[in-house]
Amino acid sequence: MSRKILLLPGDGIGPEIVAEAVKVIEALKTRHGLDVETEEAPIGGAGYDAAGHPLPEATLAKAREADAVLLGAVGGPQYDKLPRELRPERGLLGIRKSMGLFANLRPALLYPELAEASTLKREVVEGLDIMIVRELTGGIYFGEPRGIREREDGQREGFNTLVYSESEIERIARVAFDTAMKRGKRLCSVDKANVLEVSELWREVVERVGLDYPEVELSHMYVDNAAMQLVRAPKQFDVMVTTNMFGDILSDAASMLTGSIGMLPSASLNADGQGMYEPIHGSAPDIAGRGVANPLATILSVSMLLRHSLGEAALADRVDAAVGQVLKQGLRTADLAAAGAPAVSTREMGDAVVAAL
Amino acid sequence: MSRKILLLPGDGIGPEIVAEAVKVIEALKTRHGLDVETEEAPIGGAGYDAAGHPLPEATLAKAREADAVLLGAVGGPQYDKLPRELRPERGLLGIRKSMGLFANLRPALLYPELAEASTLKREVVEGLDIMIVRELTGGIYFGEPRGIREREDGQREGFNTLVYSESEIERIARVAFDTAMKRGKRLCSVDKANVLEVSELWREVVERVGLDYPEVELSHMYVDNAAMQLVRAPKQFDVMVTTNMFGDILSDAASMLTGSIGMLPSASLNADGQGMYEPIHGSAPDIAGRGVANPLATILSVSMLLRHSLGEAALADRVDAAVGQVLKQGLRTADLAAAGAPAVSTREMGDAVVAAL
Ligand SMILES: CC(C)[C@H](C(=O)O)[C@@H](O)C(=O)O
Ligand SMILES: CC(C)[C@H](C(=O)O)[C@@H](O)C(=O)O
Repeated sequence: MSRKILLLPGDGIGPEIVAEAVKVIEALKTRHGLDVETEEAPIGGAGYDAAGHPLPEATLAKAREADAVLLGAVGGPQYDKLPRELRPERGLLGIRKSMGLFANLRPALLYPELAEASTLKREVVEGLDIMIVRELTGGIYFGEPRGIREREDGQREGFNTLVYSESEIERIARVAFDTAMKRGKRLCSVDKANVLEVSELWREVVERVGLDYPEVELSHMYVDNAAMQLVRAPKQFDVMVTTNMFGDILSDAASMLTGSIGMLPSASLNADGQGMYEPIHGSAPDIAGRGVANPLATILSVSMLLRHSLGEAALADRVDAAVGQVLKQGLRTADLAAAGAPAVSTREMGDAVVAAL
Repeated sequence: MSRKILLLPGDGIGPEIVAEAVKVIEALKTRHGLDVETEEAPIGGAGYDAAGHPLPEATLAKAREADAVLLGAVGGPQYDKLPRELRPERGLLGIRKSMGLFANLRPALLYPELAEASTLKREVVEGLDIMIVRELTGGIYFGEPRGIREREDGQREGFNTLVYSESEIERIARVAFDTAMKRGKRLCSVDKANVLEVSELWREVVERVGLDYPEVELSHMYVDNAAMQLVRAPKQFDVMVTTNMFGDILSDAASMLTGSIGMLPSASLNADGQGMYEPIHGSAPDIAGRGVANPLATILSVSMLLRHSLGEAALADRVDAAVGQVLKQGLRTADLAAAGAPAVSTREMGDAVVAAL
């Protein structure tokens, strides 16, 4: 039985970039024996437009049945005035939580051909290859109680809860150690144990899990120092593991070190090996519909999907190689092109990858 | 009556760098009519060694009476095994909270003479001058309830509370807007309003305070994007205002953009105009006692102290100019010296600033 990929194009440039990723999937089907079926469903603003909710029930039902989900991006200014629970981000947070996608893998990889795009000096970032493992279904993103309440003195106060249980920490730590075993065998756990009790427990549990991975060199770093070290000497890191909120901040900083966030995919996995794959960049409403967006992060998300959810490592390697080849050929979308240099369109870039497969 | 400055040298390189700052204060007294008295007290590990607590009662009492406090740094490996409530950081957090030092001003300023020290390309950071206004006595650092508890299923969980009241947000917002009025009149408030209710209230209150400052251009940015923008195009920022935790992370990232955290001072102010001043770098136990630490961040903290707590703007300008002059003369401590270039000692640097006053 062929496996199912659910496509969630979403908003902004989402549909354009997912369309190019679909071309790659189709080429793998017709030319390289990949046996998958694809289906499409709305999410985010598109979900609200189609069904009055950023995560329509039908979309979630299809996602649960799929072997893997490929997401474009969500969000756009036309949805900014909606009540909180109907805004596009709610669709994203909702599908992560409902599918139990607790492990978010975010590579920050510098492509040698694109080293000049970084705002950092070449020697500081050349060869950069960090994998950030971010906890994605817990922490302050989902902790209860939360809200805005009136106090006795008549003033309002906002409150949120940061909470992690031992088992939540343990399972993300295992993913991180497993990831480190497949890479450079160095893991840096990032916390704020000098201030937060949650971090104290985090550190203790990560240490304990580490006993099962004697080959992995484990270190701990405070989050403020980690933010500094990413700027100062980012190549010191191999795998980093951290909470939902710290991971949100650090992975965005890390990806920007590469200078080309249009190139970076991500994977969000659950305990059953199901995964959702998406570029780390946003929906870029300012350039949506103009055919200039970079589809490579989405195409590389297909590669992660093949590797992590479908066990098709050889095909994943093929996609990675094709992307490397188009870069070597000098093809650049507008976000990557040097000032004044010619840029290819979203479609031309997608076609070039297909040709290189 | 002469005003009082309490000196808290603390741990590691703290005593060495504070000694140089004291030379500057003495020179201002004898040669430029500054009328202050200084006294010294232990804090951090030194507080624990002297009185069994990182914030001895006598130290706090003296701090409350002083017009301003000058802190070196706290922390060292010999205190790492102490119980949480006796560790050096507790002294720092304790004095911030007890004195109500809610407004932490952290400049990230690039000295033109030191532009090469940055890991970022010169054109990205040349002229960088950001002021981060960090809330310092609230948020998740101090929120209750907090702790590690056992759940019904026998598992433990760690929990912390992020909480801000309207008045807490309002007073830090006022400091930020006032700061912006004295600078480029642009304020960026950083939050995570797409996820956290606290941030929703934060944004609302900052907007409201902004009505009193029609000349200040106010913008809002999500914290993950702010971390990216600091790497991508840091010069877009003038003043940033944010919570305790986000400020901890972003101010460290911002300071590292300059490449010379040995140069950056900070001020922590309360509602009565009292302030504590300290370099943003740590106690650097690895180089403590060797006379190689850079005293300039502490000397520049004296300048902030003169300006913010003593109303001595002219003397503050004099200190700033003296620091600028020694840099122009080419004097560099080891942290700033180019590889292989000669470096001056902590004392030589202090003496040079005194001579340049
Ligand atoms: C859109 C937002 C809710 C989301 C997050 O904070 O997780 C995004 O920033 C991300 O990192 O995927
Ligand atoms: C030492 C630590 C508790 C402190 C903080 O987190 O506030 C430090 O990182 C700082 O920024 O002054």
